[in-house]
Amino acid sequence: MYRSHNCGELRASHINTEITLSGWVQKSRDKGFIVWVDLRDRYGVTQLIFDEERTPKAIMEQAQSLGREFVIQVKGTVIERESKNKNIDTGDVEVLVKELTILNESKTPPFTIADQTDGGEELRMKYRYLDIRRNPVKNNLIFRSKVTQEVRNFLSNGGFIEVETPYLIKSTPEGARDFVVPSRMNEGEFYALPQSPQTFKQLLMVGGMDKYFQIVKCFRDEDLRADRQPEFTQIDCEMAFVEQEDILNVFENLTRHLLKEVNGVEIEKFPRMLYDDAMRLYGNDKPDIRFGMEFGELNAVTQHKEFKVFNDAELVVGIAIPGGNSYTRKEIDKLIDWVKRPQIGALGMIYSRCNDDGTYKSSVDKFYDQDDLAKWAEVTGAKSGDLVVVLSGDTNKVRAQLSALRMEIAERLGLRDPKVFAPLWVIDFPLLELDEETGHYHAMHHPFTSPKPGQIELLDTNPGDVKANAYDLVLNGNEIGGGSIRIHDKETQAIMLKHLGFSEEDAKAQFGFLMDAFEYGAPPHGGLAFGLDRLVSILGGQETIRDFIAFPKNNSGRDVMIDAPAKLDAAQMKELSLKLDLDKV
Amino acid sequence: MYRSHNCGELRASHINTEITLSGWVQKSRDKGFIVWVDLRDRYGVTQLIFDEERTPKAIMEQAQSLGREFVIQVKGTVIERESKNKNIDTGDVEVLVKELTILNESKTPPFTIADQTDGGEELRMKYRYLDIRRNPVKNNLIFRSKVTQEVRNFLSNGGFIEVETPYLIKSTPEGARDFVVPSRMNEGEFYALPQSPQTFKQLLMVGGMDKYFQIVKCFRDEDLRADRQPEFTQIDCEMAFVEQEDILNVFENLTRHLLKEVNGVEIEKFPRMLYDDAMRLYGNDKPDIRFGMEFGELNAVTQHKEFKVFNDAELVVGIAIPGGNSYTRKEIDKLIDWVKRPQIGALGMIYSRCNDDGTYKSSVDKFYDQDDLAKWAEVTGAKSGDLVVVLSGDTNKVRAQLSALRMEIAERLGLRDPKVFAPLWVIDFPLLELDEETGHYHAMHHPFTSPKPGQIELLDTNPGDVKANAYDLVLNGNEIGGGSIRIHDKETQAIMLKHLGFSEEDAKAQFGFLMDAFEYGAPPHGGLAFGLDRLVSILGGQETIRDFIAFPKNNSGRDVMIDAPAKLDAAQMKELSLKLDLDKV
Repeated sequence: MYRSHNCGELRASHINTEITLSGWVQKSRDKGFIVWVDLRDRYGVTQLIFDEERTPKAIMEQAQSLGREFVIQVKGTVIERESKNKNIDTGDVEVLVKELTILNESKTPPFTIADQTDGGEELRMKYRYLDIRRNPVKNNLIFRSKVTQEVRNFLSNGGFIEVETPYLIKSTPEGARDFVVPSRMNEGEFYALPQSPQTFKQLLMVGGMDKYFQIVKCFRDEDLRADRQPEFTQIDCEMAFVEQEDILNVFENLTRHLLKEVNGVEIEKFPRMLYDDAMRLYGNDKPDIRFGMEFGELNAVTQHKEFKVFNDAELVVGIAIPGGNSYTRKEIDKLIDWVKRPQIGALGMIYSRCNDDGTYKSSVDKFYDQDDLAKWAEVTGAKSGDLVVVLSGDTNKVRAQLSALRMEIAERLGLRDPKVFAPLWVIDFPLLELDEETGHYHAMHHPFTSPKPGQIELLDTNPGDVKANAYDLVLNGNEIGGGSIRIHDKETQAIMLKHLGFSEEDAKAQFGFLMDAFEYGAPPHGGLAFGLDRLVSILGGQETIRDFIAFPKNNSGRDVMIDAPAKLDAAQMKELSLKLDLDKV
Repeated sequence: MYRSHNCGELRASHINTEITLSGWVQKSRDKGFIVWVDLRDRYGVTQLIFDEERTPKAIMEQAQSLGREFVIQVKGTVIERESKNKNIDTGDVEVLVKELTILNESKTPPFTIADQTDGGEELRMKYRYLDIRRNPVKNNLIFRSKVTQEVRNFLSNGGFIEVETPYLIKSTPEGARDFVVPSRMNEGEFYALPQSPQTFKQLLMVGGMDKYFQIVKCFRDEDLRADRQPEFTQIDCEMAFVEQEDILNVFENLTRHLLKEVNGVEIEKFPRMLYDDAMRLYGNDKPDIRFGMEFGELNAVTQHKEFKVFNDAELVVGIAIPGGNSYTRKEIDKLIDWVKRPQIGALGMIYSRCNDDGTYKSSVDKFYDQDDLAKWAEVTGAKSGDLVVVLSGDTNKVRAQLSALRMEIAERLGLRDPKVFAPLWVIDFPLLELDEETGHYHAMHHPFTSPKPGQIELLDTNPGDVKANAYDLVLNGNEIGGGSIRIHDKETQAIMLKHLGFSEEDAKAQFGFLMDAFEYGAPPHGGLAFGLDRLVSILGGQETIRDFIAFPKNNSGRDVMIDAPAKLDAAQMKELSLKLDLDKV
């Protein structure tokens, strides 16, 4: 038996008990006649003491030889600590060691195993097994486990059945790119890894499973943006005989349950916002509503003067920065530079200071008088001391730009408090989205999303106006979940696929099994999927999903610890009937 | 709202309640003036009634038009049933329908949706979504969900942390074949799908996670034997600072918990058997101990006469078939044919009848007298009325043959009762196994398994004799779990890899990260993995794992429902820098 207790367990009540501990040497202090060692395991840290008077010489010497991260086992007596440490749970006691066994030695780790470490990202990833010993990472992984367990219990208690769907499925060349898997037994053919279990969960509804969930890995071969992973985890759910309202209620309850159990936060009814309103008020379909700074659309109060920039714009829109009138000219110039960066892409920024005396001072005083500027303030909700900032241009672009600016300002003003949780349903998403490059419409959610009742005729005339029974759950400015009521009849599905540019042949080849299934009594159904990595990181008060993944990949999709991916040996390639085709110019 | 109640919910207490139900038409009986419809959903069946007197004519006609598997919604009143049906929970009531909506029609399904169906395996797999509507399949999936949830709760309550390990890892060309995944972003390189999270769970122990579990898909590109799947699910566990005894206790408790919660069976301490004893007594490392028929080794009581077949054999071994003396000569000849089939491969079978009068009559009376045969009976534990059957030959082969015969006899005698559960630990497995084809030793469990203390020196002289800290959990003749105490120091791991034929270079390329990790304070650790598919099917009283998998693949690794794997289009191949290499002769 390696231990009678763990390193986070001993209290004053254990004094005079003989115990055995095992763990890692966090640090040791050697005063010559006395040695203290902090022994660490997953559960905490316990102080060990060795001293000249009470510790045999051989053990004393052994204690003095211990290096950082050595793995040791000690037997000894729990004694009261002279100077108590109120910062740790075991701080009332220490262990007077009688026996010491070195279970394994350790080289000096490449970075310190401490909450604040000297290791950079790259080094920590290469030695992720050491990084995981650090409290912040360890606690994140434990937190993730707790969240998933809460999700499972909630859904299981609610009658949901967890069903495992297959990982080796079939490639569908629409949407994001699939990762594929050559089949040795079916020469020249490939499986694909699922981007989500979408079709399978729908088939489970056709199969009468009624309420399904699964916490499941999904795969997307995308060029990785910051904080995207090629493999990610979804809480995937589907229900039969439901309308949108049923789904929103169930998953609002789940989210409320998590906020309460995991964060101790109680939230009443989640607000709901139309997609169109979210875009109009926040320029964004996942608005962070922990703070104001709602958009004010200024076309009506700006386009009556000679200012060509505004007059030519599809949209003139501003926000009021609270207290922004205190910014110096230089600070405002910096803000203008910020919005003009290529990542944001604004051509410029107009501003109007709201002075304490009720007057205004703008960067376009040449064109606008005090009455005009008063209206800007009114529309954006600016008060004395605020700064109104205004962008203009194409509606979609300018909304995205101003949304980015709004988030940046909020960040600087400390308005994005990770301990405050503001969930929000965004509903009535458009069914289709115009791909500006190709001029084609594609499904905003996915091809199985149902249009709102009575709107299917609009598909022919105004496809962009058709709204879907689709919804997103937003938390603190992040989409943590999304879903829709699905199409459940073959005719509608066929119309939808036609409008997405599928030939009948392609539709049959790719989704034939689903279309067939719809002919054998498919029930009305719908569902939702949460992005677990994102959900956990936000509940954990952070926004970097990588910190909540045990072994993440870097931005090139590499695991630098195991050095994957890697070349295959020739025999393996031969067995798979594959050759590399590297002659790209 | 599609329903106020589900189809398994209504009782006498609901009589006179107005309710709404949705579900599938299981069957309908049309007497002209009265129509009964059995409405089915996941939760049960409720009888609907339409009659001339109380049902509006239009609805009556609609009811008469309903086909099997139509999806309908009805509103109506719960009334008492005239002739109650004690076989179903809702049998006291029926619903007098006032409104009927057809939610979706259905073509006639290709097989009947009933417990006993007329659909063959191939058809049921192609329309698996219909197969899942059948109670046996549906209940298996629900059962699986319940088992996994029990496992998760037990382990979580025991302080285990569920950590997700990556699916896109690195290929290791030893052991079974990997499925691989070409990386588009890292041209010419491949990920591999994990055969198990083995190295990652060990790294988590190095990382101090202390107690880990995960219910996780694993992948093996093997030529599929019956009832094997290319993707399968493991309950994967690992613990630090443990000895074999700790692991056996934890997972014995887990299994005991499952048997109690899921099957209502209480089992005390699980017996333990040495691997060597299992092989000697049952010819098998996963003996079914629900019944006797233990092997009796007969060399000492057979090799003193002139019977060359036995004298030349490495092992002469028999079992007593209870009541087998009642077999006719013809039946015994059939049994001899059975063991001579190529799948079993015995060259013949000797037998000795144990007559009621205490005499014996054998097929080798020419060589053996009554005293000899009495000893055979004694060694095999045969009683009057039994039949002693004896095989001989090479030890390994003959044990496997007799084991197969023992299982076959038990099956025929009905001794393999699926409601009886006989768990068993088999311990002290050999560390290495001789590959008779290549003459090389390979790891019986895996290369990270630790040898028993003090046996590492034997590796040079008698590698086959070295025992490992490895153990299997056997249930009713099936291995449901297996594991080992791992090597946790770089030196032992290096010796082990050397003995498995890895050059230092290969070892470093493939397991360098693990060897490195062992230098930074790896704790003693060990673990176990359960095969979930198998575990669930045995707990469910069945032995076919396919019946407990929602969307299984066939023996060629194909999903016949979605028709995967499939060809990739040229653009996808190009993006992956791959060409097919089909010029095999």
